[in-house]
Amino acid sequence: MTATVAAPQDGPLAMICGGGSLPMAVADLARAQGREVVLFPLVGAAEGLPVERFRHHWIHIGQINKFVTLAREAGCRDVVFIGAVIRPSIWQTRFGVKDLLWLSRALKAFRGGDDHLLSSMARLLEDEGFTLRGAHEVAPQILAPEGVTGHAQPSEADRADIAFGTAYLDAASPYDIGQAVVVANRHILAVEAIEGTDQMLTRVAELRANGRIRAAKGGVLVKAPKRGQDRRFDLPSIGPQTVDGAVRAGLAGVAVVAGATVVADAEQLVAAADRAGVFILGLPSGASS
Amino acid sequence: MTATVAAPQDGPLAMICGGGSLPMAVADLARAQGREVVLFPLVGAAEGLPVERFRHHWIHIGQINKFVTLAREAGCRDVVFIGAVIRPSIWQTRFGVKDLLWLSRALKAFRGGDDHLLSSMARLLEDEGFTLRGAHEVAPQILAPEGVTGHAQPSEADRADIAFGTAYLDAASPYDIGQAVVVANRHILAVEAIEGTDQMLTRVAELRANGRIRAAKGGVLVKAPKRGQDRRFDLPSIGPQTVDGAVRAGLAGVAVVAGATVVADAEQLVAAADRAGVFILGLPSGASS
Repeated sequence: MTATVAAPQDGPLAMICGGGSLPMAVADLARAQGREVVLFPLVGAAEGLPVERFRHHWIHIGQINKFVTLAREAGCRDVVFIGAVIRPSIWQTRFGVKDLLWLSRALKAFRGGDDHLLSSMARLLEDEGFTLRGAHEVAPQILAPEGVTGHAQPSEADRADIAFGTAYLDAASPYDIGQAVVVANRHILAVEAIEGTDQMLTRVAELRANGRIRAAKGGVLVKAPKRGQDRRFDLPSIGPQTVDGAVRAGLAGVAVVAGATVVADAEQLVAAADRAGVFILGLPSGASS
Repeated sequence: MTATVAAPQDGPLAMICGGGSLPMAVADLARAQGREVVLFPLVGAAEGLPVERFRHHWIHIGQINKFVTLAREAGCRDVVFIGAVIRPSIWQTRFGVKDLLWLSRALKAFRGGDDHLLSSMARLLEDEGFTLRGAHEVAPQILAPEGVTGHAQPSEADRADIAFGTAYLDAASPYDIGQAVVVANRHILAVEAIEGTDQMLTRVAELRANGRIRAAKGGVLVKAPKRGQDRRFDLPSIGPQTVDGAVRAGLAGVAVVAGATVVADAEQLVAAADRAGVFILGLPSGASS
């Protein structure tokens, strides 16, 4: 992965923000590098974030013209999409008059998988002269490092499960589904589709509680970016809640792809992993893809 | 698929039975063909079945020697495994003294996926001179027919989703995971691993209820046998509860592979599908595999 760090001289950075802890972490890191940041928090997703610490404009999903106008006025050329956004209903999306010009193309974007949705939105913005940047380009510190982070180490059996999970995710990748799987003893216990990693881990915890998984402990969570995924806006991410979910699911650890996974609240994440004796492993980037 | 119907002159049929409606349906069909049936209901799985209508011996999973002795005494050579059995914990499995001779091989069987478990058990029985038969060999009437059953018809969009789901299941097949997927607008909403089809459909219903799936209706359940799956003991199955689950999940229909899917309570299933306007489609067997 080549992470070109966008420099302050590139002008202010426009960040379209969903929920979760990542948007503010990335904004703070970009500002720490001397870059001005303008936030565009999304109504229905970014509520509760301390956006007032930055210049900001609330927007609705679909208000492309409002974003384009305000971001241009602010002198932004680089745009980052970051944070959790529930896939919107086209009927809940707000469109202004000029937005309707984009509507036929946007509607097409809503028909495919998430990758298709996001890459279509990226093209719309690029046609307007913006450059879409990955969060890792403006704040490379948020990416998972290679190797073990924290105290716990994966066993040989864990490594075999990780290889099995990675191979499955690679095979499933063309179908544009979730990026995560739980494997124990080379047996797939759960596959993430649209429910998300946290809910998948809750399911594994339930399957353990009700005896469908008989072993009380063991297994790994494997997350990997989809093959051909545009890493500018859809990297897999983990955070302390991922570790909590893995602990509740009785897992031995979590494996992600180094340099291609965003880590939210890294300190808390490692502290939680160390408390629970759960390993966190960054796989070499070439191992998947 | 070549379904050799085992004939009455092959002696009594031994049926090792788990739960659900299939075991008694198959036993009745075999008896209707003039074949004597000896049931071996599994403790912890087959409770509640009217096994007293047949000669029967309750056994625990792992009591291989008890089964072998009783089945030989009864003159059985053909054995059918059928019905739902929760993957057992080796510690909850009962072994007699002679069973322990098989234990090291059985333990190995528990390490792989379900296919590995079942095929290892099949080999153990075949080494003892038994022939493992598929339920479809002794009761071919229980298999799903090709084409639409019932009134509702799949749309062109449904057929595109079915093709997408079938392709995904084929790609996932080498990883020995579940046999079912839910697809809407060529977007995978849920993948079945060990939780089972019913629980996966419940998840889709919940994702719809909480807005993660915005469309109120639509999508298909696709079930297919795994590639290379030994069809003698692990065919996918559907029943009225599958239709109920599909209805709760807001799906348009259910697609299975004709001749390679067991249908439990077919009349009730079709009645439920017709009431709800849900289609039931048997795909040509060559379409998957």
